[in-house]
Amino acid sequence: MNRVIDDPDQVTEGTLRGVLAAHPDLLVATDHPRVLRHAGDRPKGRVGIVTGGGSGHEPAFLGYVGPGLCDAVAVGEVFASPTAKSFHAAFKEADGGKGVACLYGNYAGDNMNVKMAAKLAAKDDITVRTVIANDDVASAPREEADKRRGVAGEILMWKAGGARAAEGADLDGVIASAQKAIDNTRSIGIGLSACTIPAAGKPNFTIEAGKMEVGIGHHGEHGIAVLPVAPAKEMAGLMLERILADLEFGGEDVSVLVSGLGATPLMELYLLYGHVDEILRAHRITPRFRFVGNYFTSLEMAGVSVTVTRLDEELDRLLRAPARSIGLTVAG
Amino acid sequence: MNRVIDDPDQVTEGTLRGVLAAHPDLLVATDHPRVLRHAGDRPKGRVGIVTGGGSGHEPAFLGYVGPGLCDAVAVGEVFASPTAKSFHAAFKEADGGKGVACLYGNYAGDNMNVKMAAKLAAKDDITVRTVIANDDVASAPREEADKRRGVAGEILMWKAGGARAAEGADLDGVIASAQKAIDNTRSIGIGLSACTIPAAGKPNFTIEAGKMEVGIGHHGEHGIAVLPVAPAKEMAGLMLERILADLEFGGEDVSVLVSGLGATPLMELYLLYGHVDEILRAHRITPRFRFVGNYFTSLEMAGVSVTVTRLDEELDRLLRAPARSIGLTVAG
Repeated sequence: MNRVIDDPDQVTEGTLRGVLAAHPDLLVATDHPRVLRHAGDRPKGRVGIVTGGGSGHEPAFLGYVGPGLCDAVAVGEVFASPTAKSFHAAFKEADGGKGVACLYGNYAGDNMNVKMAAKLAAKDDITVRTVIANDDVASAPREEADKRRGVAGEILMWKAGGARAAEGADLDGVIASAQKAIDNTRSIGIGLSACTIPAAGKPNFTIEAGKMEVGIGHHGEHGIAVLPVAPAKEMAGLMLERILADLEFGGEDVSVLVSGLGATPLMELYLLYGHVDEILRAHRITPRFRFVGNYFTSLEMAGVSVTVTRLDEELDRLLRAPARSIGLTVAG
Repeated sequence: MNRVIDDPDQVTEGTLRGVLAAHPDLLVATDHPRVLRHAGDRPKGRVGIVTGGGSGHEPAFLGYVGPGLCDAVAVGEVFASPTAKSFHAAFKEADGGKGVACLYGNYAGDNMNVKMAAKLAAKDDITVRTVIANDDVASAPREEADKRRGVAGEILMWKAGGARAAEGADLDGVIASAQKAIDNTRSIGIGLSACTIPAAGKPNFTIEAGKMEVGIGHHGEHGIAVLPVAPAKEMAGLMLERILADLEFGGEDVSVLVSGLGATPLMELYLLYGHVDEILRAHRITPRFRFVGNYFTSLEMAGVSVTVTRLDEELDRLLRAPARSIGLTVAG
């Protein structure tokens, strides 16, 4: 893979420098070199929202900082958790006296570092509560849902939590809405090629030509099955079968997010969305919100993920609320 | 390349089906299967804006239809011009009695088909005038600028023309503003890997591992030089050297657009933007508008393009005007 980088060990630094230069209206640097904060006013008198995660998933995570979304982000190395210190610094940046909701994905490193950071923040009299996204249905059976990874469904969690914080809800309310968003969200991915961490220089997993890995994780974690590449219609069927088996429906509309994993052309994402839309409607499920694009990626991995969120009145209102960021803008 | 497609000969149909299902608020089908129209009111009493081009460059071209941008788009097969019939149908969709501005890129097929379509439209009493984007500095020397290809700079042309039409300018005024936008715009790309037209099944050009092609076209057209892959800082220097030699500056601010060609991760685009920003500022040129992302792609080609637009008061106003589309939204 030929890359647009300088020193392979400094890609995160270079990315942050470019992001700050490109979006001074959205993001500003802080005293901690791996923490960015929303360029607007600090969340004084309301709940602050923090997220964080490894680099290489852009626009996640830093691309979801902005009005109506997150207030601060802790940035890790490529595919690695941010440190406890950086989560702690992000909590301080996002604290406006009403507590901080840390909304992040279920990975061992993040869990450990967020827990340590919350303890450090408690000494500063900052209350931190968490919602841990576990939307990836392929990563563990339903009975062990607490072992599931967080993937592109995190975007819905940030949107719901951020909108609720902007409405002025207290920490309990923000946590409840973010938790509801992720509890009603299921995702699954299909990997079509591997990717390489620049500093490693070669992929730590492989996907053969002509094969697809159903249920692959955002870092190449093993999925459910390696199968011959199927037509897009079958891919959509396979993915929705898993999602719909896991999320019971009683006539609710949904939000659908189709995200590329990096190298798959946008035209293929739309082609897949056409099938997803058709299959959902055949199940009498209406896609009320539709997002198609590279929302949560894994470097140059080819492939796609599908995320379905079951809506109620509250989630509908929170998804419609205005928001502005690199990754997601809602006019409101 | 493992793909998310069904029949390789039907990827454009599948893409359009998915786009229409995902964005009924933005785009609607027309009587012509390869023409989409903005879902809002037709441009009654104002100039209509049409564009068109081959598929595989998404979000270009259909992703730039919407309020403040284009009114209708003619969609070609992958990397192939739309037919004269489809351009003609798009002119009819976009005509509101004040004429149509067809803003497209300088390729032989598009030139021929737009010319034929304009003749057909004349018989319907629809006046069509054109601006032909030629922003790619690498595709011909300055003295032969009319031979240069149109690339990502087309986005600035659509933005300026669309904003001017929304202001209520007549056809002369819209054409003048779109022409001014492209006359003040220069682009150049670097290719880092080839791409494959699905129906062809193998790439019609190659880029070796460890090599980069400076000045590559959006369909793999040959550039200026094949060199060993350079650090991002040198890539930025090489590209801006060509652009700045071609566009004289007298203290104007600029708009900068860094677009990925498809498979290059977003983090690398930002990393490159950091260098572009620094080099421009060292030349006392201030990037007033900054766009970084996959704005104009070539399937899964790895690589990047840089587009610089010299601003005056009018272009500043037109770039700030509100717009909404799949590829570009400006809150206004």
